[in-house]
Amino acid sequence: MLKSMLNHQSVDRVFRALAEPTRRAIVERLSAGPVSVSELAKPFDLTLAAVVQHLQVLERSGIIRSEKVGRVRTCRVEPGGLGLAEQWIAERRTVWERRLDRLGDLLAADEPEQQPPARKGRKS
Amino acid sequence: MLKSMLNHQSVDRVFRALAEPTRRAIVERLSAGPVSVSELAKPFDLTLAAVVQHLQVLERSGIIRSEKVGRVRTCRVEPGGLGLAEQWIAERRTVWERRLDRLGDLLAADEPEQQPPARKGRKS
Repeated sequence: MLKSMLNHQSVDRVFRALAEPTRRAIVERLSAGPVSVSELAKPFDLTLAAVVQHLQVLERSGIIRSEKVGRVRTCRVEPGGLGLAEQWIAERRTVWERRLDRLGDLLAADEPEQQPPARKGRKS
Repeated sequence: MLKSMLNHQSVDRVFRALAEPTRRAIVERLSAGPVSVSELAKPFDLTLAAVVQHLQVLERSGIIRSEKVGRVRTCRVEPGGLGLAEQWIAERRTVWERRLDRLGDLLAADEPEQQPPARKGRKS
């Protein structure tokens, strides 16, 4: 129960983090390799402070992590960090596809031409 | 270029729609089958107007659709509606995994024990 609640909160953090175009652009950039914060900030028309805030949201959600060596903080994608969002979507698709399969089975059972010809009339 | 921009906007709409726990709960409920708006609203401690607003956000993002027959509006999951978000995540993972593969190749090429023993010392 507690685990499920914590998981709900984590899924929420991941989707909230991804609901902002600048943060998705940062994840796109970091997928290609680790980058320093100042390098990451260059293409965006934002203050360094604003970029750092976006990075904090991404780091708290577990999508990226960062490490400071000397005066340089480097960010990288966290392996499996996007996994919670991917899993949530895949679970919805599974439930939905199973339902369609059951509907398909029901429809097939209703079609008389699917039965062997000898039993068609149910009279033999 | 225009297509890419429109796609960015759609990805944005899908992630924004999913960044809200009530809307995700609605999608979870609808994955199991179509439901009327009033039935959907029951488990939530929200006004019907608030639920309708959430449904409009989900419908504009293409995740669900609704249809009014008589006085009853029924909602259902839109096939492939979550696909844009799933695709965006899968693309990030692909870029990231390819980079890891290249790193793995580089490391393997650097390991002398991977070479035949006769060439180990590079002196022969």
